[in-house]
Amino acid sequence: MGYRHEQAIGKGEEAQHRVDVVVPTGEMIAELIIVGTELLLGEVVDTNSAYMAQRLAELGIDLYYVNRVGDNRKRIAQLVQQAHERADLVIISGGLGPTADDLTKEAVADAFGLELVLCQDALADIEEHFRRLNRVMSENNKRQAYLPKGATALPNPKGTAPGVLLELSGGKAVVMLPGVPVELKAIMEDSVIPYIRRKLGEENRATIYYKVLRFYGLGESAIDNIVQDIIAAQTNPTIAPYAGSGEVRLRITAKAANESEALRLIEPVERQLLERLGPYFYGYGDEGLEIVVARLLLAQKKTVAVAESCTGGLISHKLTNVAGSSGYYMQGAVTYSNAAKTAVLGVEPELLTRFGAVSKQVAKAMAEGVRKWAGTDIGLSVTGIAGPGGGSAAKPVGLVYFGVSYPQDTKVFGRQFAGDRLQVKERAALAALDILRRYLLGNLGEELED
Amino acid sequence: MGYRHEQAIGKGEEAQHRVDVVVPTGEMIAELIIVGTELLLGEVVDTNSAYMAQRLAELGIDLYYVNRVGDNRKRIAQLVQQAHERADLVIISGGLGPTADDLTKEAVADAFGLELVLCQDALADIEEHFRRLNRVMSENNKRQAYLPKGATALPNPKGTAPGVLLELSGGKAVVMLPGVPVELKAIMEDSVIPYIRRKLGEENRATIYYKVLRFYGLGESAIDNIVQDIIAAQTNPTIAPYAGSGEVRLRITAKAANESEALRLIEPVERQLLERLGPYFYGYGDEGLEIVVARLLLAQKKTVAVAESCTGGLISHKLTNVAGSSGYYMQGAVTYSNAAKTAVLGVEPELLTRFGAVSKQVAKAMAEGVRKWAGTDIGLSVTGIAGPGGGSAAKPVGLVYFGVSYPQDTKVFGRQFAGDRLQVKERAALAALDILRRYLLGNLGEELED
Repeated sequence: MGYRHEQAIGKGEEAQHRVDVVVPTGEMIAELIIVGTELLLGEVVDTNSAYMAQRLAELGIDLYYVNRVGDNRKRIAQLVQQAHERADLVIISGGLGPTADDLTKEAVADAFGLELVLCQDALADIEEHFRRLNRVMSENNKRQAYLPKGATALPNPKGTAPGVLLELSGGKAVVMLPGVPVELKAIMEDSVIPYIRRKLGEENRATIYYKVLRFYGLGESAIDNIVQDIIAAQTNPTIAPYAGSGEVRLRITAKAANESEALRLIEPVERQLLERLGPYFYGYGDEGLEIVVARLLLAQKKTVAVAESCTGGLISHKLTNVAGSSGYYMQGAVTYSNAAKTAVLGVEPELLTRFGAVSKQVAKAMAEGVRKWAGTDIGLSVTGIAGPGGGSAAKPVGLVYFGVSYPQDTKVFGRQFAGDRLQVKERAALAALDILRRYLLGNLGEELED
Repeated sequence: MGYRHEQAIGKGEEAQHRVDVVVPTGEMIAELIIVGTELLLGEVVDTNSAYMAQRLAELGIDLYYVNRVGDNRKRIAQLVQQAHERADLVIISGGLGPTADDLTKEAVADAFGLELVLCQDALADIEEHFRRLNRVMSENNKRQAYLPKGATALPNPKGTAPGVLLELSGGKAVVMLPGVPVELKAIMEDSVIPYIRRKLGEENRATIYYKVLRFYGLGESAIDNIVQDIIAAQTNPTIAPYAGSGEVRLRITAKAANESEALRLIEPVERQLLERLGPYFYGYGDEGLEIVVARLLLAQKKTVAVAESCTGGLISHKLTNVAGSSGYYMQGAVTYSNAAKTAVLGVEPELLTRFGAVSKQVAKAMAEGVRKWAGTDIGLSVTGIAGPGGGSAAKPVGLVYFGVSYPQDTKVFGRQFAGDRLQVKERAALAALDILRRYLLGNLGEELED
């Protein structure tokens, strides 16, 4: 859930060995102020601050506070003063537009007792922007060329509002950026990040590295319990757990002079963690279960077909989210009705009446049936009760059976999930992918007893 | 994408006639504090604050500041003090988990000089949660039952961490909620919003009403262009457009003494909007295309089967997200390979070689084939190029064909979508649902010419 980008299979080893580089903390403290009444009404989700936070983290800059405030000149000015006291670098996004409720520059000028003056360079850039688009510049766009006295305009290659850099005493600075994400990013990349790098000086850079391990099948508190002594004992690298959707990640962060030293520090800690959590570990970095499964299927040259009941197509959707999925995913059936289970997958009606559609017997027959139907190496099946209706004392909502069929055998597993209909679907789909992963690793675990 | 709650079919007329009640502004000032180091590292985009901001805006509560801070006890405590000075209601999300870096309750206790005490009710709820899941509760989950002295636990129906309500002098309060979005939303809806309504008092309530109209098939700026004169002319009710995922909504907001007066104000504006945008209008409020389609299928007692290629199961997933979907959804096939299209759906190999898998001819054969395969009233098919590979000059990435087969005929449609693999899948799935909706309304529109 929540996928937004390409799922690429990649090389696998890359993700495993990659450490992400970060410069040391403590050199510079930054603070963000996100301006815009629309954000306070919840009409827009703020993605700018996550982008900026990530870029700052990569530069090793500490960020303690992100503030969001409406288009109110006095409140913005007060926040700017407070942030300027707490941080070396204050970055403000939003409120640089041409209309009367865009007040960021006015507020910053207020905060430092400055006046706004016309910047001829900025004005020329804005005029050039309109000329290029063959559009008439409106009078209020001229407002965008006024800067607090002493400030520098940062060119905006994607729009009219220039960014603004105001350098202050004590090596501190305030940066103002437009709120439109593409414009903000362009000015960050072209002007602000180079400025920060110059400020930090090359000699201070690049000595923090991190690596993320991903786990499925144990909750955050269970994982924390199992490895909390390791976490507590570590100072370099440090280990931080965090919960994702249906999974847990551990981030190992090392300070080191270079990448190989960082890997040398991370390696024994990773090994220690995996000794205890190995059965639940599935991958690294930003690679989800479907990508790990895709890589295993391609490496083993195996094909899979999926028979879904309660997940309603979600497993097939996830498997085909990976670019190149036609290399292992052939076909799938969503057999929602009992009649479909029989007609498509050959599940015997007697099994359905005797054990019910949600049973290990039917899960098994579905897995075998879909493998035969599709002529694939592996058949994967899911049948369960997503809710909110259809549950009983013996078979409550959230009960799901899984089958995995392969040339030698067919195995069946059962799980009880919590949550509403969509959560049960999501959790069951992840569990099915994990069963497929474990089969491909020759590590299926114990199936349900008869 | 991004569904988190039950999709209920409901009565339909309810959604159409419902106006949501909002109280006047100025009665209460709120402030949000979003806790989590992962947010300051930019690893996670904060969606909780947009949701909370929206709900608070609907309640007419002013929100001046949203603060984000890391898992740092001292900084959280300082922010809580500052927010408590500026606002009547402080809502904190995150930092209620079971691990040592979850420090919100400790920080709030620090801010007000309180100690943490064990809440037996909260402990019983947590124990019950683990019992229900048949899992062993770990010792550190017990931490989640400790509250600042004098505070009340707010039940968490979706997880272990209870919310916390701390009422303070001067009618002020601090609310703590878990950072997991489904849990946060559940506690907001079940406990926090009812609490706020009680605090506001019945006499202050209910003088702002709004109604949301949903449109598919036109972009936000196109809709804005078509109805901007209506929007500009309105003062009561007002009209605000906002873009959703692949769709646009118009919110009509009326101030009125009571609901029937609000409806009287809204009705002519709604009619004016629908006169111009009627063909693109599909529903009201929080009901997505799949719910509208579900209601039409049930009312017409029609069944549907789906044959998917590039969407890979997403359409079936959406159709089965609606509780009660077994009443109209029988079965679906994800025929990813050409062999599957032929074996399952009876698409003639000659069509595939002559026109290609992504063609109107194959979309048509798939729709007819799936209808026959499943024995349903309607067959719906999708075949296209989700990318990033597989495109050509003649058939670029994002090209998708749709077929809808029914007793009298089969019709075919083509669309070109922008975006990455997952966006193309999502947009194609919505387009397919809209085609099904239009068929059910007897308003299919023009199909592709031969």
